Amino acid sequence: MLETCLENVRNHGALVHNITNYVTVNDVANAILAIGASPIMSDEPEDVEDIQTICQGLNINIGTLNQQSIEGMKRAGKKANELGHVVLLDPVGAGASHLRTQTALDLMKMIHFDVIRGNISEIKTLALGTSTTQGVDANAADAVTEENLDTMVTFAKHFAASQDCVIAITGAIDLVANANTCYVIRNGKPQMGQITGTGCQLSGIMTAFLAANPDTPLEACAAAVCDMGLAGEIGYSHLAAYEGNSTYRNRIIDALNQMTTMQFKEGAKYEIK
Amino acid sequence: MLETCLENVRNHGALVHNITNYVTVNDVANAILAIGASPIMSDEPEDVEDIQTICQGLNINIGTLNQQSIEGMKRAGKKANELGHVVLLDPVGAGASHLRTQTALDLMKMIHFDVIRGNISEIKTLALGTSTTQGVDANAADAVTEENLDTMVTFAKHFAASQDCVIAITGAIDLVANANTCYVIRNGKPQMGQITGTGCQLSGIMTAFLAANPDTPLEACAAAVCDMGLAGEIGYSHLAAYEGNSTYRNRIIDALNQMTTMQFKEGAKYEIK
Amino acid sequence: MLETCLENVRNHGALVHNITNYVTVNDVANAILAIGASPIMSDEPEDVEDIQTICQGLNINIGTLNQQSIEGMKRAGKKANELGHVVLLDPVGAGASHLRTQTALDLMKMIHFDVIRGNISEIKTLALGTSTTQGVDANAADAVTEENLDTMVTFAKHFAASQDCVIAITGAIDLVANANTCYVIRNGKPQMGQITGTGCQLSGIMTAFLAANPDTPLEACAAAVCDMGLAGEIGYSHLAAYEGNSTYRNRIIDALNQMTTMQFKEGAKYEIK
Repeated sequence: MLETCLENVRNHGALVHNITNYVTVNDVANAILAIGASPIMSDEPEDVEDIQTICQGLNINIGTLNQQSIEGMKRAGKKANELGHVVLLDPVGAGASHLRTQTALDLMKMIHFDVIRGNISEIKTLALGTSTTQGVDANAADAVTEENLDTMVTFAKHFAASQDCVIAITGAIDLVANANTCYVIRNGKPQMGQITGTGCQLSGIMTAFLAANPDTPLEACAAAVCDMGLAGEIGYSHLAAYEGNSTYRNRIIDALNQMTTMQFKEGAKYEIK
Repeated sequence: MLETCLENVRNHGALVHNITNYVTVNDVANAILAIGASPIMSDEPEDVEDIQTICQGLNINIGTLNQQSIEGMKRAGKKANELGHVVLLDPVGAGASHLRTQTALDLMKMIHFDVIRGNISEIKTLALGTSTTQGVDANAADAVTEENLDTMVTFAKHFAASQDCVIAITGAIDLVANANTCYVIRNGKPQMGQITGTGCQLSGIMTAFLAANPDTPLEACAAAVCDMGLAGEIGYSHLAAYEGNSTYRNRIIDALNQMTTMQFKEGAKYEIK
Repeated sequence: MLETCLENVRNHGALVHNITNYVTVNDVANAILAIGASPIMSDEPEDVEDIQTICQGLNINIGTLNQQSIEGMKRAGKKANELGHVVLLDPVGAGASHLRTQTALDLMKMIHFDVIRGNISEIKTLALGTSTTQGVDANAADAVTEENLDTMVTFAKHFAASQDCVIAITGAIDLVANANTCYVIRNGKPQMGQITGTGCQLSGIMTAFLAANPDTPLEACAAAVCDMGLAGEIGYSHLAAYEGNSTYRNRIIDALNQMTTMQFKEGAKYEIK
């Protein structure tokens, strides 16, 4: 099933509008290209509505937000909603500063998101008002583990129901839930945490997966998570002993680019709860 | 002849001022360094005139433009004209939004450009007022092909004459024209389209080629196009089966960096019309 | 001794707040991750104080500065001083424009820096008011050489004394000085100058070294310089003949990531004056 979502994204060629941080933007663009979709970046308020109009989806990532880009996010998000385009929120650093938390919450009131994707600390901040985020990384104490898995699955489903969207919580174990169903995904490598932007890249490709699979948003998001995690595994397998996080960054995008449907089908590790 | 332009850029070491998008800026900087020139980036209106003064050329790229950087482009462009420095316009996404189209047209009225380099849809937008751009990529229906080549060469020469500059239209077949002469270039690989920013990199190095070859701007631009396309061919030849667009990105800049004059002379594929 | 600083940074895991240019920001983030610390980027004035509060250090780099980010630098720097966090200034392009020179000088009046790190032309501009900077690269005429070494060591110590901080001047020969002692470091490769951002990366990791070694700031800074230079040597040793500056960029960060304490201890080349 999930491999169909991958094939659709390759055949569909969605044009994805990204308002994203300047730290990882180049990797986001190359990751979107790697899976056969196309990126365009625009955050100027006077530009975003026209750009969104020619796209099929919108990826809003609040890392390195500023007053101008926040206004751009709002205008682009409203336009995407008007046009029925898919919209994703990546609440980078929600919980780490008042501005980030408040911006994410404001956007959630103003715009209907098809999916919110973040680490567990960011998602807890938005759902519960707690604020345990460690910078842009999750607090270890929050982690989804085998021990608390059932509790966290219930949490994800409840938050998804309350927001009427898909919630994707990524970490060592990934959860992708709507109100009724949760994919529990165990792809990926811990070394991905030593690379900046694998989460941002996932948000970018997830938007393309959503745009190419409009009738199955939950499966589209789960497939994107498997694709990124599996790319992390494949990329890692090609590293020489002296190669570290910078070459690994390239290898992951390479693997997104070169992965066959068969590799995806055999490598995706998930269960449904 | 064109290899002389390459040797001049290596020996000249031009300092190129770039006002460019935050998506591909790092690759633009490394591409400029790869060919033996030096980049500096500055878009703050209060900073750009001083920076332009110490440089030998200006590369204006309107991807991820904003109100502040547009003002920076105008001030920097006027200063470059005053000082007699070469100026290039890369009208990224002209045709995709009103702001991008209008900004490119405003800049063309206010600043004399030595060269305008874009994909065919962007150039048609500026020349004809049509607007078929697909995001930041060319519309396939616009493509320069063997069938419409003579028509497109005439179009490029006419637009070059009307703007009193060199027009560089890049795609599967590249055209580099002034009013009288057009280089038709067939270097490159289709896989370069899966990497963000090869066009932006080309604009960056083309500005350095122009600055180092002030008396032969047409040949300088044609040489830059051959150099980038040939780097795409050489870089591709070094890819392992599991390597994809991210490693390819590095290999192209590596090839710009390591190319010998002999490789360039033997590999440049062009005819003059 | 210096290897203890490296071990501390790996065990400490400092969270470093960076206000830095959009050209090299991704490499700065991956370099900080490579050594076992964590980066966060934020320049919006309304965001920087909260972000600085959860961090252990601040890296201010004035490349691609703008009016908004300058305000962010000021607020973040004051907050870091209030909280007793380490603060580093990287005066990119001081001497190349009035705005850059003045911003660096203003920040030095307003904020106490633990270290100022730049190339020799930038540091001379700040110390002497001369202005020989060639864009963002040092003027060759300013270079620290074996011939002028004693004079330059004295200069570095005097400027360090006047600013009550560590001064790090990097180039072919690196000087890291406080009022009384100067490390003269001879690691690195000239080919690092063909990569954009090795200086920016050094400033990022130096901030993490400082945060992890609060009682030995001079040694922390010297260790960071050795680490970066040695990574340049190790990375270079893994390059194939066809690989150039783009792959070299990755190899240096890889080497930061994979370097053992033993490699560091054996490879660090310094004397104390």
